[in-house]
Amino acid sequence: MSDNFSFPVRVYYEDTDAGGVVFYANYLKFMERARTEWLRQMGIEQDVLTQEQAIVFAVRRIKVDYLKPARFNEQLDVTVQVKKCNNASLDFYQEVRRAGLKSGEVLCKADVQIACVDVVRFVPRRIPENIIMELKNRGV
Amino acid sequence: MSDNFSFPVRVYYEDTDAGGVVFYANYLKFMERARTEWLRQMGIEQDVLTQEQAIVFAVRRIKVDYLKPARFNEQLDVTVQVKKCNNASLDFYQEVRRAGLKSGEVLCKADVQIACVDVVRFVPRRIPENIIMELKNRGV
Amino acid sequence: MSDNFSFPVRVYYEDTDAGGVVFYANYLKFMERARTEWLRQMGIEQDVLTQEQAIVFAVRRIKVDYLKPARFNEQLDVTVQVKKCNNASLDFYQEVRRAGLKSGEVLCKADVQIACVDVVRFVPRRIPENIIMELKNRGV
Amino acid sequence: MSDNFSFPVRVYYEDTDAGGVVFYANYLKFMERARTEWLRQMGIEQDVLTQEQAIVFAVRRIKVDYLKPARFNEQLDVTVQVKKCNNASLDFYQEVRRAGLKSGEVLCKADVQIACVDVVRFVPRRIPENIIMELKNRGV
Repeated sequence: MSDNFSFPVRVYYEDTDAGGVVFYANYLKFMERARTEWLRQMGIEQDVLTQEQAIVFAVRRIKVDYLKPARFNEQLDVTVQVKKCNNASLDFYQEVRRAGLKSGEVLCKADVQIACVDVVRFVPRRIPENIIMELKNRGV
Repeated sequence: MSDNFSFPVRVYYEDTDAGGVVFYANYLKFMERARTEWLRQMGIEQDVLTQEQAIVFAVRRIKVDYLKPARFNEQLDVTVQVKKCNNASLDFYQEVRRAGLKSGEVLCKADVQIACVDVVRFVPRRIPENIIMELKNRGV
Repeated sequence: MSDNFSFPVRVYYEDTDAGGVVFYANYLKFMERARTEWLRQMGIEQDVLTQEQAIVFAVRRIKVDYLKPARFNEQLDVTVQVKKCNNASLDFYQEVRRAGLKSGEVLCKADVQIACVDVVRFVPRRIPENIIMELKNRGV
Repeated sequence: MSDNFSFPVRVYYEDTDAGGVVFYANYLKFMERARTEWLRQMGIEQDVLTQEQAIVFAVRRIKVDYLKPARFNEQLDVTVQVKKCNNASLDFYQEVRRAGLKSGEVLCKADVQIACVDVVRFVPRRIPENIIMELKNRGV
């Protein structure tokens, strides 16, 4: 089980809807940003992956529980935890939490499965060995 | 079990990402549009609901399976099926399918739970009686 | 000067922000949808253009006046008018108008310049002859 | 003339389109984020402004020149410069620049006019005195 990684996200007008809260699809953007930054701090840049190995990470399945709404101008933390590393996919658990004054309150939690796929045909491809190694070094 | 309702959606540049396919969060927009139109064809306008009864429908839980990617310029159909009507929530099953030449192919399927909540405090509220009646009339 | 073309757009939650109105960047999505449908009704499909001729239409310049806000659930009409057809670019004038009860009220108007560019290098390319012909046939 | 303020933005998948570049409407999101952070570093929080004074800042006019495309995974800087402070509006000049290796290259530049409006009726309101003072202290 990997350590938690956390990425800060600020709620801007673009993220909210007329209900005064973050639009439900936009939490998926926040979670994708956090996964991207989690990869980056392991030295993995997705544009390089695509250019050099012709693969992309595509979301295959998500399950999201929306517990409390995030509102305009709030500061959030988005966590990334790898639950399982398979040959061609990764299972994540992610939370969106309030930062600042009400720090830690979980607003939204998700199970996310990411598949490693061919950039053109979107068929499964093995996760590159260096990524597997990085994950193992981190105890995943 | 209600009949299927289907709503057409075209994939524009705004919906796609650099992977050449629809960005995973944007299917949730398509599904929300379809649910909105499903309510509308029952005579229910959400802006009126909010103004007159101070309620909104908020997504409480989603589970999405991404099976195949939708691409730029494709024509899609998004289905809406009510699985269960509770006091303060509705359970839906939705699919995003290819229209046109490859008509019917399921690209994405989802279980969606919608809660009826107070517009200010986001606490549960009973679904209005006229909506319950409309659903019963349709065999839900 | 070409005739006006108009494309209907409904305002969904995804389009609005916590101010209760359509987020200012989203009018650009509406205008892009309308330009896409204007091309389509001339028989021009942009995915085919890219696959067969390796070009895309990219926005080079916009000037947008936001006159009145569009709100959640409103029905809009988005117009497309070609002002000028150059070798490698097109000048448009577009309006976003209220449909329905307050039909015709202009909420937003824009001058938009679109460039025809190479899909990989984003350098200018001549607009394909068949598109020029189509435009001439329509009096542009 | 105020000093330049600059805010870093990373390009994620959500920002790009099937052309492989940032979708043209999304630069407006980046510019809005930068204006929000520029206000914040002057001690002005927009949610507080709305709650306490019932005003919002709404974009009245933009003119954007798209010079070069930003691509997936690039790091950008978004500048904010106040050109003029009026009674009920502010004129900005903003640039989106490449950061990192090709630092400083201007990808997109914009003139933006923001109006101070009533949160309910969207009619003009005077800019609060403390904001005017803050701007004057900074030489605007």
